[in-house]
Amino acid sequence: MWHKPLIIRIIIPMKGLKSFLTLSACGLLVIASQSCGRQNNVPELKSPDGTELTVDAETGLIKTPVPARAEGQEDVIALRLDPMDSVRVGFIGQGMRGPDAVYRFANIDRTSVKALCDKHADRLASGQKHLADAGRPKADEYVGEESWKELCERPDIDLVYIATNWQNHVPMAVYAMEHGKNVAIEVPAAMNLEECWKLVDTAEKTRKHCMMLENCVYDFFELTTLNMAQQGLFGDIVHVEGAYIHNLDEYWNEYEGNWRLDFNEKHRGDVYATHGMGPACQLIDIHRGNKMDYIVSMDSKAINGPKAVAKQGRDGSNFQNADHTMSMIQTANGQTMHIQHDVLTPRPYSRMYQLTGTEGFANKYPMEGYAFREIKDSIGVPDHENLNAHDFVPENVKVSLMEKYKHPIQIETEETARKVGGHGGMDYIMDYRLVYCLLNGLPLDEDVYDAAEWSSLGELSRISLANNSAPVEVPDFTRGAWKKLDGYHHFMKGE
Amino acid sequence: MWHKPLIIRIIIPMKGLKSFLTLSACGLLVIASQSCGRQNNVPELKSPDGTELTVDAETGLIKTPVPARAEGQEDVIALRLDPMDSVRVGFIGQGMRGPDAVYRFANIDRTSVKALCDKHADRLASGQKHLADAGRPKADEYVGEESWKELCERPDIDLVYIATNWQNHVPMAVYAMEHGKNVAIEVPAAMNLEECWKLVDTAEKTRKHCMMLENCVYDFFELTTLNMAQQGLFGDIVHVEGAYIHNLDEYWNEYEGNWRLDFNEKHRGDVYATHGMGPACQLIDIHRGNKMDYIVSMDSKAINGPKAVAKQGRDGSNFQNADHTMSMIQTANGQTMHIQHDVLTPRPYSRMYQLTGTEGFANKYPMEGYAFREIKDSIGVPDHENLNAHDFVPENVKVSLMEKYKHPIQIETEETARKVGGHGGMDYIMDYRLVYCLLNGLPLDEDVYDAAEWSSLGELSRISLANNSAPVEVPDFTRGAWKKLDGYHHFMKGE
Repeated sequence: MWHKPLIIRIIIPMKGLKSFLTLSACGLLVIASQSCGRQNNVPELKSPDGTELTVDAETGLIKTPVPARAEGQEDVIALRLDPMDSVRVGFIGQGMRGPDAVYRFANIDRTSVKALCDKHADRLASGQKHLADAGRPKADEYVGEESWKELCERPDIDLVYIATNWQNHVPMAVYAMEHGKNVAIEVPAAMNLEECWKLVDTAEKTRKHCMMLENCVYDFFELTTLNMAQQGLFGDIVHVEGAYIHNLDEYWNEYEGNWRLDFNEKHRGDVYATHGMGPACQLIDIHRGNKMDYIVSMDSKAINGPKAVAKQGRDGSNFQNADHTMSMIQTANGQTMHIQHDVLTPRPYSRMYQLTGTEGFANKYPMEGYAFREIKDSIGVPDHENLNAHDFVPENVKVSLMEKYKHPIQIETEETARKVGGHGGMDYIMDYRLVYCLLNGLPLDEDVYDAAEWSSLGELSRISLANNSAPVEVPDFTRGAWKKLDGYHHFMKGE
Repeated sequence: MWHKPLIIRIIIPMKGLKSFLTLSACGLLVIASQSCGRQNNVPELKSPDGTELTVDAETGLIKTPVPARAEGQEDVIALRLDPMDSVRVGFIGQGMRGPDAVYRFANIDRTSVKALCDKHADRLASGQKHLADAGRPKADEYVGEESWKELCERPDIDLVYIATNWQNHVPMAVYAMEHGKNVAIEVPAAMNLEECWKLVDTAEKTRKHCMMLENCVYDFFELTTLNMAQQGLFGDIVHVEGAYIHNLDEYWNEYEGNWRLDFNEKHRGDVYATHGMGPACQLIDIHRGNKMDYIVSMDSKAINGPKAVAKQGRDGSNFQNADHTMSMIQTANGQTMHIQHDVLTPRPYSRMYQLTGTEGFANKYPMEGYAFREIKDSIGVPDHENLNAHDFVPENVKVSLMEKYKHPIQIETEETARKVGGHGGMDYIMDYRLVYCLLNGLPLDEDVYDAAEWSSLGELSRISLANNSAPVEVPDFTRGAWKKLDGYHHFMKGE
C-alpha cells in the first residue's frame, strides 16, 4: 500500500549559529525525523545511554550534544598552577590499585600522604605499612561510604588520588575539584559522555588539574618510540593502533561485589579503551594540533561473557559486552586509529601499540620491533619470493636505537622506576611526573581533555554499535582549543 | 532563513516485492532524497564507481543493486562437472605470474599445456622452456592484443588460466566461459561490483567453474590452522583478520606500462584484499553457512603514493589510494573481520592472518603462535604484574600441535610443493587442487562467489570511504544460496 503524502516542515540549521541555537535546530530536526518515523529513509537513531543524538545534514555523522561554556569559563589547555613546596595527597580507594600507589608516593620526594580512605576499614593497613616502611608518618584514616567527602574538604591536601570502582570516579573527582583540590583519577575516568563533560566543565570552572592515571604512556617502549617519532624517524605518521586485550578470567570474582564484570555485563562497547588510546593519541598530538573527527565501531557476538556470568550461577543471557570489540577513528590531520577491546578470550595480552609512518614502523606486541625505509634500503632489496623475510631491524640495531633514543624522562627515572616497580616501572614514572609537574607549576602530561577523550570511547562506540556501525562524530572536548598547542610535549622545569 | 515547507511524497518499499520492484522503489527513494537534496537530514550519497546507491530505511545501511537472475538461471554452489581424463590448459598472460604457473602445471600429472598467449611475443619463451625441461610438448603460441580470443575459442582446452593485468581479468574470463571453458583468474578477479556480478552471472549462465587464484589459503600455517579450527580447537570463532601489507616500492616500475601503480593512483580503497580475505573467509564459512552483512572502511592520508608517482616525474597530487586503508566487516553468524591494505609504507610484510576464538587464538605475523585456554590453565595463572608474559604456547608445543593437525592436503602435496615451489609451495598446492578437483568432477576449493566476495572490497570500501565511513551492505552474491552448504570444505575424491 502506498502511504498518503505527508507534509513535513524540514528545517536546516544555519552554520554559525551559537551552539544552543544549533542544539535547538538539531532538536527540531530530530523531532521532524521522528514524526516522519519510517516516512523518510533515515532509521530512528538508537541512543544506548539516552544521550540526545542528531545526524549532521552535510556529513551524515551522528552527533552528540556539546554543552555551551558558562560565561567567562575558559579552556585549561596547558594549565599552570603555582609551584608547590610539596604535594600533599589524600587517597580514596585502597582496593587493587590504591595501596601500590601509596607505596610509590612513599618513594617520591617532597610528597606527604595525609589521608587514606576506603569503604572497608581493614583495607587501610596495607597503605599504612608502606608509609611506615618508608619512614613516613601515619596517614589519617577515613572509612565508610561518605567519609571521602571529608577527605576532599580538608584544607591541607593538594591532590586527591581516586582509585575506587569506576562509577565513583566522576562524582568524587567533581566534588574534590569543587573543594579546591587537584585530582588524579584511575582509568577510565568517566563512564559516558555526560560524565566526560562534567569532568571538563568542572576542571575549567575550578581551574584545577584533573589527570586520568593512564600509566601505559610511560612504559619504556612507548616513551622511546614517542621520542623517535617526535624526532621524525618514522616520517609522517599515518596510522596508529591500541588495544586492551587482556583475559580477565581470574578477575571475575566476588571482589568488591564483582563490579567490573557487572559493568561489562551491562555495557556494550569499548568500556576500557584508555591503555590503548593513551600512547596512540600522544603519538598523533590529539588536542595538541590534531583532533579525532569521528569513530565507527563493530563487535562480535558475546559468548564468553554470558558464560562468565553463568559460571557465577546467574543468568548471563543479556550480557552486553562482546567477546571482541573494535573501533576505527579518523583524525583531522589524516591519521587513522584502530582500537580494540577483548577481556574475555584466551588471547595473549596485548595493548597493540603500533605506529605506521611514511618512513618507518614500530610494533610492540607480540614482539617489539622497528622497521625503517632507510635501513631497509641499506640492507638491499628483499627477494619477492621470500615473503617471510623479516624486515624488522635486527636485534642489535633495535637495542642500540632504543639506547640512542631513550626518552629523557626514562633516563631521569629509570633506576628508581625499576626498583619501586608497578607494571615494570611505568606506574612509578606516572606518579613521579605528576608530582614533578605539580611541584614545578607545569602543565601535566595528561590533562582533563585526555581523560575525557580516551574515556569517551565507551559511549561513542556504544552509539555506533547500536546503529549498525554508523559513524559518530567525536565531540571536541576542548570546544575550539585543540590547536592551541603545537604537538604533544612533556613539560620540564624551566619551560 | 527558514525554508518554505516542501511537500514530498515518500514511498516505502514493501518487504517481499520482487527484486526489480524493490529496485524501482529504492530508485524512487533515491530520486526523492535527491530532489530533497539538503532538505532532509541525509546527505547525498557519493558513488565513486557510479553504482546506484540507496539507503535502507530500516538499517541505515548503504545498499548496492542486486541484479535479478535470468529465468531458469540457478546458483553454482558446489558445482560439479563431469570428471576429466586430463586437464588441457591455455594460459593468457606470461608476465610476472604466468611462466611460474606454466612451470607448476608442467609438474602436475594429467595436465597438458596446449597454448600460451601474451601481448609480447618474447614473453612466451620462458613458459616454453619450462615445458621442454619437463619433457612436455611445445605449446601453441598466441601473440598480440586480440589473439587471446582464439585461444578461448579452441575446442581442445578445458581451462583458461588468466594471469594478465587486472583490468583484463573479467572481459577475458567472461569470454572464455561463454565459449565453454572453465576459468582460473589471478587476483583480484574483478575491479568493481559490476564486474563481480558479471562473473557470477556468467558462471551461473554457462555453469562453468570460475576460480580466483587465491594462493594464500594454501600456505601451511593457514591450512593447519583451518584444520584445527574445523576440529574445534579454538572454540567458537568470534573475530578474524587479514591484510595485504607489502611494500611495493620495487614494483612501481615501468613494467607493463606501470598498470599496478596506475590502478592505485586512480582508485581509493582496498584494491587488493584477496590475500587477507581468503583465509579469513574460509575460517568463518562465508557463503557456506555464513555471510558478510556489512562493511565500514576508513583510510589515512595519501603521502607515499603521491611521492611514488612524483618519483616517476609525474604529478601525483590526485593519488587516490591511501598509505593505509582498513575495513571492518560484520557477518551473519556474529563474527567480525578486520582487513587492512598498505602497499606504500616500509612496514614489514604481513597478511595479518589471525583468528580469535572463545577457546583459543592463532596468529601468523610477525610471528606464528597459538594460545589456548586449556593449555593456559594447565600452565597456571600468570602473574598480573608480568604483563609481558607470553601466553603463546611454547615452541615445542606449537611444533607438535602443527604436526598433529597437519592438513590432509598438505600431507598429500607437501613434498612436491616444497620442491616445485611458488611462494614456499602454496602456489603449487593451489594449482594441484584445481587440477585434482577438475579431474575428479568435484567442487573447487574456491568458487565464483569467493572471487566476487573477496574482490568486492575494492568498490565496497570505496563507497564507505566516500561517505565518511558509512556502513555499506555487502551484497549476497549467491542471491539466497549462502546456507546451502554447512561449513567450508575441501572436497576429496569419492565425496
